[in-house]
Amino acid sequence: MGKNLTRKIFESHLVEGRMVAGEEIRIKIDQTLTQDAAGIMAYVAFEALELPRVRTEVSVSYVDHNTLQVGFENADDHIFLKTSAEKFGVYYSKPGNGICHKVHTQRFAVPGKTLLGSDSHTTTSGALGMIAIGAGGMSVAMAMAGEPFPLVMPKVVNVKLTGKLRTGVSAKDVVLELLRRMTIKGGVGKVIEYTGPGVETLSVTERQTISSMGAELGAITAIFPSDKISYEFLKAQGREEDWIELSADEDAEYDEVVEVKLGELEPMVAKPRMPDKVVKIRELEDTKIDQVFIGSCTNSSYGDLAKAAAILDGKCVHPDVSLSVAAGSKQVFEMIARDGILQKLISAGARVLESACGPCVGIGQSPPTGGISLRTSNRNFIGISGTVNAQVYLSSPEVAAASAITGLITDPREIADLEVLESIKESTDYIIDDRMIIAPRENTEDVVIKRGPNIRTLPVREGLDEEINIEVLIKIGDNITTDEIMPLGAKILSLSSNIPAISQYIFNVLDPTFSERSKENNGGIIIAGENYGYGSSREHAALALMYLGVKSILAKSFARIHHDNLINHGILPLVFKEKADYKKICPDDTLVIKRVKEQINSGEFIVVNETKGFEFKVVAILSDRQKEVILSGGQLNYIKRLL
Amino acid sequence: MGKNLTRKIFESHLVEGRMVAGEEIRIKIDQTLTQDAAGIMAYVAFEALELPRVRTEVSVSYVDHNTLQVGFENADDHIFLKTSAEKFGVYYSKPGNGICHKVHTQRFAVPGKTLLGSDSHTTTSGALGMIAIGAGGMSVAMAMAGEPFPLVMPKVVNVKLTGKLRTGVSAKDVVLELLRRMTIKGGVGKVIEYTGPGVETLSVTERQTISSMGAELGAITAIFPSDKISYEFLKAQGREEDWIELSADEDAEYDEVVEVKLGELEPMVAKPRMPDKVVKIRELEDTKIDQVFIGSCTNSSYGDLAKAAAILDGKCVHPDVSLSVAAGSKQVFEMIARDGILQKLISAGARVLESACGPCVGIGQSPPTGGISLRTSNRNFIGISGTVNAQVYLSSPEVAAASAITGLITDPREIADLEVLESIKESTDYIIDDRMIIAPRENTEDVVIKRGPNIRTLPVREGLDEEINIEVLIKIGDNITTDEIMPLGAKILSLSSNIPAISQYIFNVLDPTFSERSKENNGGIIIAGENYGYGSSREHAALALMYLGVKSILAKSFARIHHDNLINHGILPLVFKEKADYKKICPDDTLVIKRVKEQINSGEFIVVNETKGFEFKVVAILSDRQKEVILSGGQLNYIKRLL
Repeated sequence: MGKNLTRKIFESHLVEGRMVAGEEIRIKIDQTLTQDAAGIMAYVAFEALELPRVRTEVSVSYVDHNTLQVGFENADDHIFLKTSAEKFGVYYSKPGNGICHKVHTQRFAVPGKTLLGSDSHTTTSGALGMIAIGAGGMSVAMAMAGEPFPLVMPKVVNVKLTGKLRTGVSAKDVVLELLRRMTIKGGVGKVIEYTGPGVETLSVTERQTISSMGAELGAITAIFPSDKISYEFLKAQGREEDWIELSADEDAEYDEVVEVKLGELEPMVAKPRMPDKVVKIRELEDTKIDQVFIGSCTNSSYGDLAKAAAILDGKCVHPDVSLSVAAGSKQVFEMIARDGILQKLISAGARVLESACGPCVGIGQSPPTGGISLRTSNRNFIGISGTVNAQVYLSSPEVAAASAITGLITDPREIADLEVLESIKESTDYIIDDRMIIAPRENTEDVVIKRGPNIRTLPVREGLDEEINIEVLIKIGDNITTDEIMPLGAKILSLSSNIPAISQYIFNVLDPTFSERSKENNGGIIIAGENYGYGSSREHAALALMYLGVKSILAKSFARIHHDNLINHGILPLVFKEKADYKKICPDDTLVIKRVKEQINSGEFIVVNETKGFEFKVVAILSDRQKEVILSGGQLNYIKRLL
Repeated sequence: MGKNLTRKIFESHLVEGRMVAGEEIRIKIDQTLTQDAAGIMAYVAFEALELPRVRTEVSVSYVDHNTLQVGFENADDHIFLKTSAEKFGVYYSKPGNGICHKVHTQRFAVPGKTLLGSDSHTTTSGALGMIAIGAGGMSVAMAMAGEPFPLVMPKVVNVKLTGKLRTGVSAKDVVLELLRRMTIKGGVGKVIEYTGPGVETLSVTERQTISSMGAELGAITAIFPSDKISYEFLKAQGREEDWIELSADEDAEYDEVVEVKLGELEPMVAKPRMPDKVVKIRELEDTKIDQVFIGSCTNSSYGDLAKAAAILDGKCVHPDVSLSVAAGSKQVFEMIARDGILQKLISAGARVLESACGPCVGIGQSPPTGGISLRTSNRNFIGISGTVNAQVYLSSPEVAAASAITGLITDPREIADLEVLESIKESTDYIIDDRMIIAPRENTEDVVIKRGPNIRTLPVREGLDEEINIEVLIKIGDNITTDEIMPLGAKILSLSSNIPAISQYIFNVLDPTFSERSKENNGGIIIAGENYGYGSSREHAALALMYLGVKSILAKSFARIHHDNLINHGILPLVFKEKADYKKICPDDTLVIKRVKEQINSGEFIVVNETKGFEFKVVAILSDRQKEVILSGGQLNYIKRLL
């Protein structure tokens, strides 16, 4: 049997381990990316390693999250990131240059290479035939230090695309359909590999929409072959020399096969508050909306905005609706200005925002109390819009534009001129201009990293305690996202570089007393359901808990990135052996785990619930390396010893 | 002797009083405007009057301050404003449609009419030959109710413009030069009337730049004649029927004459932290900058941005500088998109912000700690940028654009192609599209005003106490701005509709303990120097103090709008009879004023400093009407009794 594309790239990057699904392997990382919110701690950690320079082929530091600059903290962070990049030989993409994943695919992504990014949507660059994986900032710091990235060898799902999308149906609908079928856990432990004749009907930017939401499927990454379409894209970006042809063998083996008939899809919408609550648009038509946002790394390409503009052309946003639009990158922004698309958007009443993540990460454009927001972004979790009781729906730009006009969730095919819409294609005339990206220079000994007063050092745990004997601080349900653990928004994200300050907001949405209680109690234990830590790679969801003294999280299961983040910061992630035991534990129960170090080696722990008077078993799903890391009190202690 | 233009318009609008400088008159108000931050309380007050509809010719509610929408509060405020406008027959300009003063001049201002706006830069519409006055929200509410606006008949200064600006020198330099000569107190109690042959060399938008900063001169308003240039502007706006010719008589009488020779001006810059700290640019050249902002009601016209773009064309923002740009209105935004100007700005690395006040009111783009920001806006007060220790310089768009390229404060004539720059003119091809302005409708009985949970009622004082016997809470110096009394910024402004919450931030920049101490003490007295309450019309600077129980402010002198705001909310503004007494009072001294009501009628008060054991005299500079207002506990009590 032949090899699938994922296997080929893993094979060429394998440093350690056997490529058997479920076993830990370590792969060479060629490129890294960071964004500002998650990046600061990555550079603080890298600095602690005392290496003069990154050891990757390409590392890029983007500023795309906190670009509103509400308070001095954000601008200070930007200067810290700029001078850190200068010091360590990292490209620095200035605020205004765009969303990391869009810019990276345009200017840096290379087929066949590996990319590790401190953002869950790093998967986006999979559109160009890369293995592009999201991780916590600490993991990215290790990759910058040249350490191979450890992960469990994934299964590979073949998503076979056939046919061709009909006009008014879009790439977003492909991935929403997959979410409908596979759910947010459908990709756990897997890579989603797209194949089939439908692939060549999709532009690279359409592929980006699909690969970006590999994160929502819970997948390690999502990947498209590198084909003629990829070549044309790279050529239009002035980077044809980066192209290689790369795809699965004809007879490649896969662990699963899913077929999507593109021609049969209809516009889809994800209902609040999970991206897999997907229904056909007709089930939601006439839902009144308050707000529309067109943008995010998932849907902010030239083609996306051109299609939205074609629908809005000559029309006007409904009086009761606020429509905001953000281009994915300076490149796209300049092109839509050049081609008259931006004028159409402005004319129709769109509020044009800076090219950045913006509303997608709760940075501005929060809806009114209880408001209904329709967004082209990738997540609709509770609180993600900055308004806890708002309801966020997800759709394609076409649906979003049509709905902005009518004020109701609307099938674009009902109001758009389909001939015009069909004529809109992704541009092949890209404006190539990297002047907003500051390239690394040779001698950087004289560079001084500038730190504003809000930029603090990285707290580090001292090592694992021999005995855990502490109360349960909170008990939560399934699919708790990192956004619920550490909420987003301009105010909280401006504290990304200050762990003591940001720790005040941990679990703020679910239980505003958590931080205070944890501090008073010198930490505690958290009881969680399935898929704990789903969503964003937000490392602060682990860092803040570590800072507050949380010893362990007992869950039915963990999301991959967050599981790694917990280990990296010395918090013990434990999984219930019998899921039924979850029910028996209450908040405030005192749990005792003795001989922690001994038990960590066996992987199985006995936990005593002293309050209720019973014992139960949990397991630590840790590789030998991860055991070492957690025994050291986290990744930084571990690697410093190694280096 | 003939009449000046100011006198002509006052005469045609006089309802009460004699037009003798220094005497209180009341004039009919034809139009009102509000912006979101100051508008909410205006509509809450108007609602309390229980009138079905505004009694003006035109009233417009703009949303231009809090458009970042950080949290649900802002979007809730917008809905409150929209439904209030609908209920009371007010035009509603949606967020994204632009800055109130720019939009108002473009779409509503009418030569010869009067405009009262709840924003100090309402003076901007004076560019079209209106008497356009800034006031607190309560005053605007009264005007909406049809009440004539009371003010002291101003002196009129004739600013005679001769010659013509040289290329690279701009309208901003005219008003900066006036600030240099006249200072921030030069316009107190006066109207600045522009005359002379230089007037016809200035477009209406250039006149706007000059008239907007009438506010910084401390003037009641600033006004230009309505001439051929105004006709062309109104015609290009599709409003030629609104035009009348209107100017001073040839032999008009003035109280003062100032001449400005336009041809002799050079680019000017105001240094931190007052707009009258103006020097010629060559005194500051090579000052390193971190940030540039081109925008605000003062400098965000088509011509402003076209000139900036011409300088930036083909060049790139300096690596160490962040340049942000915001068009003044959707009209301008769409036009610069149409004409290729926006593409040039994006290409050069400008961060394009929504068409709104933005950084000018501390809403986003805060500089780094201790950062140097060069802005085309109108104020450079401490804290106005959102970063307390940042240094804000003010300049023209030409200087700002040139400096963004070099990273240093730069004379545009050194790097710009002067021929190209000279060829750039204000457009005459305006895009007329009012679809983002929701016009009032006839029957509004069914309209329900929507209130989010943050929108509270207006606190009202019960009436003046018979005796004041309370401590001094704070003693402050000269020229304390309303921005220092009630700071700006996204977070604080989002509490505009919640007086108890916003009151926590009063005097935050000068003394973060103030609010707490005031609450504990059940209020107190404030001791201030000259020109107390200069700057923004921010009514919250009075409202919050009233809410906290502050009884009186003893100052050497007051700024006009704030003096009115204090009276409107029942706080007694008192002026030292002997300025030397200011020195003798210390914080925590207990001051006693007996028989307050009796003394208010005489206008002169005896104050006993019980702590230090001495007496001194203060005066209340109040008209008979103002005495009634303050005895009633504020404007709302007073007018409810009258209606």
